Amino acid sequence: MFDIADIRSQFPILSRQVNGKPLVYLDNGASAQKPQVVIDAVTRGYAEEYSNVHRGLHYLSNLATDRYESVRGVVARFLNAASEDDIVLNSGTTEGINMVSYGWAAPRLQPGDEIVLSIMEHHANIVPWHFLRERQGVVIKWVDCDADGNLDPQAVIDAIGPKTKLVAITHMSNVLGTVVDVKSICAAARTRGVPVLVDGSQAAVHMAVDVQDIGCDFYAITGHKLYGPSGSGAIWVHPDRMREMRPFMGGGDMIREVGRDAVTYNDPPMMFEAGTPGIVQTIGLGVALDWMMDVGMDNIAAHEADLRDYAQSRLRGLNWLQVQGNAPGKGAIFSFKIEGAAHAHDISTVLDKKGVAVRAGSHCAMPLMDHLGVPATCRASFGIYNTRDEVDVLVEALELCHELFA
Amino acid sequence: MFDIADIRSQFPILSRQVNGKPLVYLDNGASAQKPQVVIDAVTRGYAEEYSNVHRGLHYLSNLATDRYESVRGVVARFLNAASEDDIVLNSGTTEGINMVSYGWAAPRLQPGDEIVLSIMEHHANIVPWHFLRERQGVVIKWVDCDADGNLDPQAVIDAIGPKTKLVAITHMSNVLGTVVDVKSICAAARTRGVPVLVDGSQAAVHMAVDVQDIGCDFYAITGHKLYGPSGSGAIWVHPDRMREMRPFMGGGDMIREVGRDAVTYNDPPMMFEAGTPGIVQTIGLGVALDWMMDVGMDNIAAHEADLRDYAQSRLRGLNWLQVQGNAPGKGAIFSFKIEGAAHAHDISTVLDKKGVAVRAGSHCAMPLMDHLGVPATCRASFGIYNTRDEVDVLVEALELCHELFA
Repeated sequence: MFDIADIRSQFPILSRQVNGKPLVYLDNGASAQKPQVVIDAVTRGYAEEYSNVHRGLHYLSNLATDRYESVRGVVARFLNAASEDDIVLNSGTTEGINMVSYGWAAPRLQPGDEIVLSIMEHHANIVPWHFLRERQGVVIKWVDCDADGNLDPQAVIDAIGPKTKLVAITHMSNVLGTVVDVKSICAAARTRGVPVLVDGSQAAVHMAVDVQDIGCDFYAITGHKLYGPSGSGAIWVHPDRMREMRPFMGGGDMIREVGRDAVTYNDPPMMFEAGTPGIVQTIGLGVALDWMMDVGMDNIAAHEADLRDYAQSRLRGLNWLQVQGNAPGKGAIFSFKIEGAAHAHDISTVLDKKGVAVRAGSHCAMPLMDHLGVPATCRASFGIYNTRDEVDVLVEALELCHELFA
Repeated sequence: MFDIADIRSQFPILSRQVNGKPLVYLDNGASAQKPQVVIDAVTRGYAEEYSNVHRGLHYLSNLATDRYESVRGVVARFLNAASEDDIVLNSGTTEGINMVSYGWAAPRLQPGDEIVLSIMEHHANIVPWHFLRERQGVVIKWVDCDADGNLDPQAVIDAIGPKTKLVAITHMSNVLGTVVDVKSICAAARTRGVPVLVDGSQAAVHMAVDVQDIGCDFYAITGHKLYGPSGSGAIWVHPDRMREMRPFMGGGDMIREVGRDAVTYNDPPMMFEAGTPGIVQTIGLGVALDWMMDVGMDNIAAHEADLRDYAQSRLRGLNWLQVQGNAPGKGAIFSFKIEGAAHAHDISTVLDKKGVAVRAGSHCAMPLMDHLGVPATCRASFGIYNTRDEVDVLVEALELCHELFA
């Protein structure tokens, strides 16, 4: 049973005011707020249970190591991974995708080899591949979405050719909310022997994820969007790909033996976790994911589907508002501009005066913005604690913008 | 004025018991505990002031961005950098050194080019260079310390040859406490046109650091040892080297424009900070460094010199204890084993029963352990909040070990 009042009461920041108005936080696509249970875990992690991990035998080190290592199992459960050994803990999706780019793709892709991307990718799932284009002549093949933000999985599959070595694709657009049929893409890619990396930064926040059902090779998530601490995250790696990867960062913990003339590496997943990790934020991530699973991913999805439907109906009533993205089953993310009106940044500033936090800009998705022909949008992105009332506040504030700028 | 009782009262974990005994935390070389002011900053960062940074215009985003960006100036002051634009914020020394290895060294070093390391390096300052050896034929040249842990700067300088492209050296050994004369090394290296990376993970915790006086090219620090949050850190980069570096990780924030066929990058230091950063832990790092500077780096150094002297005199009284490292001016770090007695791990376990937290193992410094001919040691490493009384507790617990095992 999903009790929105109870959920909201667990997020201390939601009771604060901004510019004299109650905070209406609709910037969840950029980062989510944290429930008290996560904040408490972080505080306790520092005030009562802190030590470095893996390297000690004393009480606090064992305690911190147990807390830290238990997160691997939580992430595995969250993604329905077959084994917690398939989980690499890291600082977020950016590090996760860079690990794949440097550790798996860079040593095996040859000049002229292709990586297939959708036009809806976040820069985190573009720039690491541009590195390979710049540095070793890899070719990026783009697959466009239509004007409503639909991405035909067959178009992605058709883009896979004999030189394709990887498909890297988002599970949910952070700009349009489009949910991509990654399962169909993975099934087809697998028959062609092409691995698929799925950027789950947005999707994993809003729906149950099952990496075995999806059939992908890499699935990246980021803690700060999952109601967890900043600087936390994980990537699920198929064991076949894990075996193929070379280490990304070098340092303590990821080695077995270091000599003057030789080095041997720890077993995966430790091989991919160099140095003192983000101990306390990772512990906080585990608490956040447990908290989400306790609320229930299906309950979260249902709540946000209701918010999406209500927001769609209210925003459609504003005939001077241009909303980008209208794919069936999309998430509760709305990018928009006001016809003939001011820049998105000005709209965002007016909304802020009403306590409404939205983002303005290109949302780390410049190729998509170019494709849509918009230089910048405002984006209202909803999360677990948002309400229909907040949709109404947003609409009211937008009406004020329209009065001011139109 | 350095008031140890006041300092201790600021660390909540120090009032806890371990195994029924007051905690004597002597594992500072692995990671330090956190003062309340840092814990409060982290809690406030999540409970009242959280948002993503750089990308928003709303109140919380501006607030979090201001808090986050102000840390760059704090780190610059802490290291006496000429400009805060020379500071790259990151997750710690491991990421910092890997950034230099991937971003500066990898694209310019040719097969047969040499990197000079001391035998006292931590794995974080070894493995990234082993990568270059394995992947592109770079040669690592090692400079040994003597049996007391002294490192002759002239030996490092003499190791610089016509093929040397980098010297990478610790400022303070995490095993022996040896302080390396990095200033002399940097002066000589500069006349030969060879950049120097200094691993400041240990040194910056215990003494005032002035990167301009040292004359190095890179200086890496890690927040979790500096009484700051896990997953925080920074690296100072000389502007000439900053200009030579290519990006390390790719993603949001580090770009200027991303297209289908081209990408341009943000100015340094932003070019080297990809994706959503460790927002709250970085804010906590700034608070930790401000706190240390308020206490006074010279006061900290004087307190720890007193602890070192007292510990040296007490440990010398144990004629069955073999202490590794006796360099003049060393830090308050003591690695030891008990003659003819049990493995370091067993000693550590007995000490733990007395509430004394020390580390046992190879301390992420296997080449040094090989050089010293010891497979593992116990290490007691002191910090700002330790006392002479705690030295006495350590000695008493060691005497018990001697009785048990000898």
